[in-house]
Amino acid sequence: MTLSTTSPSKDSQNPNAVDATNQGLLSRIRLPALHARITSANEAANWIQNGMTVGMSGFTRSGDAKMVPLALAERALHDPFQITLMTGASMGGDVDKLLTESHVIARRMPFQSDPVLRAAINRGEVMFIDQHLSETVEHLRAGQIAPIDVAIIEAIAITESGAIIPSTSVGNSASFAILAEKVIVEINLSQPLALEGMHDIFIPGKRPHRDPIPVMSAHDRVGTTAIQIDPAKIVAIVITDKLDSASTVTPPDAETDAIAGHLIAFFEQEVAAGRLSNALLPLQAGIGSVANAVLAGFKDSPFRHLTMYSEVLQDSTFDLFDAGILDFASGSSITLSSKKHDEVFNHIERYKDKLILRPQEVSNHPEVIRRLGIIGINTALEVDIYGNVNSTHTGGTHMMNGIGGSGDFARNAYLSIFTTKSVAKGGKISSIVPMVSHVDHTEHDVDIIVTEVGLADLRGLAPRERAPCIIQNCVAEPYRSMLFEYIKEAQTRGGQTPHVLEKAFAWHTRYRETGSMLKSTE
Amino acid sequence: MTLSTTSPSKDSQNPNAVDATNQGLLSRIRLPALHARITSANEAANWIQNGMTVGMSGFTRSGDAKMVPLALAERALHDPFQITLMTGASMGGDVDKLLTESHVIARRMPFQSDPVLRAAINRGEVMFIDQHLSETVEHLRAGQIAPIDVAIIEAIAITESGAIIPSTSVGNSASFAILAEKVIVEINLSQPLALEGMHDIFIPGKRPHRDPIPVMSAHDRVGTTAIQIDPAKIVAIVITDKLDSASTVTPPDAETDAIAGHLIAFFEQEVAAGRLSNALLPLQAGIGSVANAVLAGFKDSPFRHLTMYSEVLQDSTFDLFDAGILDFASGSSITLSSKKHDEVFNHIERYKDKLILRPQEVSNHPEVIRRLGIIGINTALEVDIYGNVNSTHTGGTHMMNGIGGSGDFARNAYLSIFTTKSVAKGGKISSIVPMVSHVDHTEHDVDIIVTEVGLADLRGLAPRERAPCIIQNCVAEPYRSMLFEYIKEAQTRGGQTPHVLEKAFAWHTRYRETGSMLKSTE
Repeated sequence: MTLSTTSPSKDSQNPNAVDATNQGLLSRIRLPALHARITSANEAANWIQNGMTVGMSGFTRSGDAKMVPLALAERALHDPFQITLMTGASMGGDVDKLLTESHVIARRMPFQSDPVLRAAINRGEVMFIDQHLSETVEHLRAGQIAPIDVAIIEAIAITESGAIIPSTSVGNSASFAILAEKVIVEINLSQPLALEGMHDIFIPGKRPHRDPIPVMSAHDRVGTTAIQIDPAKIVAIVITDKLDSASTVTPPDAETDAIAGHLIAFFEQEVAAGRLSNALLPLQAGIGSVANAVLAGFKDSPFRHLTMYSEVLQDSTFDLFDAGILDFASGSSITLSSKKHDEVFNHIERYKDKLILRPQEVSNHPEVIRRLGIIGINTALEVDIYGNVNSTHTGGTHMMNGIGGSGDFARNAYLSIFTTKSVAKGGKISSIVPMVSHVDHTEHDVDIIVTEVGLADLRGLAPRERAPCIIQNCVAEPYRSMLFEYIKEAQTRGGQTPHVLEKAFAWHTRYRETGSMLKSTE
Repeated sequence: MTLSTTSPSKDSQNPNAVDATNQGLLSRIRLPALHARITSANEAANWIQNGMTVGMSGFTRSGDAKMVPLALAERALHDPFQITLMTGASMGGDVDKLLTESHVIARRMPFQSDPVLRAAINRGEVMFIDQHLSETVEHLRAGQIAPIDVAIIEAIAITESGAIIPSTSVGNSASFAILAEKVIVEINLSQPLALEGMHDIFIPGKRPHRDPIPVMSAHDRVGTTAIQIDPAKIVAIVITDKLDSASTVTPPDAETDAIAGHLIAFFEQEVAAGRLSNALLPLQAGIGSVANAVLAGFKDSPFRHLTMYSEVLQDSTFDLFDAGILDFASGSSITLSSKKHDEVFNHIERYKDKLILRPQEVSNHPEVIRRLGIIGINTALEVDIYGNVNSTHTGGTHMMNGIGGSGDFARNAYLSIFTTKSVAKGGKISSIVPMVSHVDHTEHDVDIIVTEVGLADLRGLAPRERAPCIIQNCVAEPYRSMLFEYIKEAQTRGGQTPHVLEKAFAWHTRYRETGSMLKSTE
C-alpha cells in the first residue's frame, strides 16, 4: 500500500509526529503505515483552505470532531478564511460557536443548535441550509451540492485495512469519508474501544440502480462495523482524549409528565382496540427534554419488549434498558447527560448486543421508516388549529435549530405524534395558534398532538373537525376561547380550511409589539 | 366453492339476473358460479346502506365505478342515506357531482376534482380528508380509519378463480377489494380485454414484518395480473359499456411551451454537467395541462430511452411512445382525451409490453420513489419567495382538488420540480407571493421552480438566497418589483426566513377586497 499524499506543511519532516508505540496507540491505529500521519490539530487544520467544503463527524453533540475545528477557529483569527461546513447534526464543545466567532462558517448544513451560530444565521451572516437529515448525503452523492474536500471524522480506532471505526455517533461520517478527497481522523482515547462492533455502516447505492435497504427490523445488521475507505486518503491523524459534550436536556417536570401520561393512556387504548400489541411498534423520539421525558414515562407503563428505531439515543433509552422494558435500540448517536455518561460507558458491554449505531441516512430513511411502521414522537415549537406544525422558526422568521429528522419520521411513520407544552414564556405565548407562522410539517403528516392539557387524535378527521379536536383537547384558557372565537369568524369565510387571513398572524404580531399573545384586557 | 352470501333483495329469485351466455360474457366472467351474481345497478346498490364506508375504483377519471354510484345517487333522492366514500383519486362521469347533489357523501377521501363536490366541501357540508395518495390504504390496513364495508370495482373480467382484472386504473382498487367485507364488480364491456396482463397487483405486507417492495426499475413486475380475493365476497356483478370520461387537459399554449423549454434547457445542462445521462431518470408528471405540456415538450428534446414512473399516464405518454423517445411507463391509470383514447385503445397491443399499471400505493410509494431517483414534475397553485408550495387551497381557505401524489413524489424525488404560470386571472393574481396562504410542500422538498418567465434552481441555497433566485428568474413585472420591495422590508426584521408577518398575506387580502393583487396605482 502506498500513502502518497503529501503534507501541506512545508517541512518534509513532520515536527508534530507522535511515536505511536510510545502512546499505546497500536490498538487504536492498527495500520502501521498510518502512524506517520499522526500530527497536531494545528498541522492537520492546514489541509483546510479558504472556500473548501468540510464534512465533520458529529450528531447531537456526540462523536463530533473536537480538535481540528478548534484549530481552524484559532487559525482564522490571524488568517481569515471561510468554509462550507456540513455535519451530521449539532456539534458539541462550542465548535459552532468558536467557528462562528472566527467567521469561518460561510455556509452550514444540515442542522445546528448553537446560540452564537443561530444568531449569525438570523442576522443573515451565515447561510444555513436546513435539511431533512436523511437527505444531505443523497444530494452530495448525486453531485447536487458542492463536493466534500476534507472530512474530519472522530474515531475510536482505524483498522488493519485502514477502515475508520466511528465513536459515539455515525451521522454522515461514513459518506463524508467516502466522498471526501482527503480525510482527517481524530482518534479519541476517551471513547471506549468497547464501542467497536456497535456500528453498522451501510451506504445505499447510486441511483437509478439501487437495491432495497435490507433493514427489516430494528436489530438487523446490514453493513460493516467500520467505514471502508482507501487509507491513502487519510492525510492526518490527531490524537485527543476530549470527552463528548454532555446533553443539555432538562429533567421531566409536571407538564412533560402529563404529556407522557396522555400518550401512554393513548397507547393503552390502541392496544385495547387491537391496533397495537403490548410491544407497540418501533419507537422514534426526537431530541430534547420533552421527548426524553415521554420515553422515560414508559418506565411506568404496561408495555414490554419495546424497540427503538430512532436517531439519537438519550438517557431514557438506557433507563428503559435497565428497567427491562426495552429490548433493542437502533440510532445514529448516543447523547447522554454527564451523570448518565459514566453509568453507561463504565458498563458499555452490558448494552453491546442491544444497540446499533447507523448512518443517519439509514436511521432516518423513508424506506425503512415506512416499512417498519415507526411510532414517531417529535417536538413542535408551534402547532395550528388544523394540525400544521412549526418545528424551527420563532415568530415565523428566526431559526432555532432546524427541522432535523422530524420530517423523515413524521411523513413516513405509522403514527406521527407531536408534543409541545401548551404555552411558553409563562403563558405569554400560546403554542397552539390560529395559523403557524412557519410550516415544517403539513396537516397530512400529523396524526396526534399532545400537550399537558391532553391529546388530540386527528386520524381520519377533516380540517373542520381537527380544529375543535385540537382546541378542546390541547389548549387551556384563555387561549381556548380565543381560538374558538377565531374559528367562528373563520367559518363565515368558508372553505376546507377556514381562516381570516388578515388576522391569521395577529397573535404573533401582538406578541412582537406587546410581549404577549394575550390581549391587554385578558 | 360455495357462494353463500344472500342477496339483500327480498326475492330469492333475482329478477335482474342476466343470462351470461346470451351476452357473450363467458370471456368476461370466467368463474361460472358467479354468473348468478349478475344483476342490475339498482339491485347491486341495495348492498350499500346508510353509514357505510364504500371504496370505489377510479383514479384520475379512469377505471372508475360508473353504474352503481349513479344508482346510489338516484336511490338517495327518495331514500336519503349517507356514506363515507373512498376512491383512488378523482372520479369521472359526474359520479361525485350526482352523489353530492343527492347528499350521499358525508365524508370523502383522498382526492376529488369535481366542482359541485368541491363547493359542498368548501361550504363544510362534506368532510374531505385530503391525503397523500400512497397513504389511504396504509391507514385502512392498520385499522386507523373506518373499514371498507363495500368495494365497487370496475373490471374488464373476473378470472376462473374469481380474481378481478381491473380496467384502465388500479388506484386503490386492489386493497379496497381485499379489505372490504363485500365486493361489487362492474364489468365494463367497452374496456378492451387486451388490457389483461398490463396490471401488476402487489400489496405490501402488514407492519412491522414487511418485506421490501421489490420494484428496482420502472418495468419490474412484482405482483399478479389480477386482484386475488375470495370470490364469495363478490355479492353482485353489474354489466356496463359506459366509456371512461375523457381527460379535460387543455392543449399546450405559449406559457406551457415556455415552461417546457426552460425545463428541457435545464435538463440539458444537467446532462452536460454529468449529473444525468441522456436517458435522464424515471419521470413523474402530475395530472393537468401544464404537466402534460411539459412532457409533450420532450418530443423536441435530445433525450432518448426515457422512462416514466408516474401516477397517471396522459396523452403525452403515448405521444412520447409513438415518437420513439419513451421506452417504458409505469403508472396507476391511463387517462386520455377523447381523440387520443381511440388512437390508443384501437392499438392497445402496440403498448402492451411498454406499460404497467400498479396500485397507487406502489406507484407513489416513498420507498420506490427514493430508490429509483425520480424526477418529479408537479403543478403548484401558488409558490412563495422561499419556495414553499401551495397545491390545494385558493385564498388559503378553499380546496381545489387535493394534494394527490405530489407530496409522495416531491419529498422523495431525486429532483422535485414545481411548475406554474407566473400569473393567473389575466395578471390579477401572482402565482408567486410573499408567503403562500397554505403550505402543502415545504421549502425542504422543492428543488426547482419553473414559470414561463424562467427557472429557479434552488438546490443548496439558503432561504435568503432562494428568494432573489425565485423572484429574478420566475416573476415578471410589476410583481417582481413588489416582491423585491417585500424582501427588502422583511430583511430589516432579520431571521433565517425574513418576513413581515402583518403584511405576508396583504396581496391575498387585497385580491379578496379589490379583485386584484395589484395596488390600484399599478
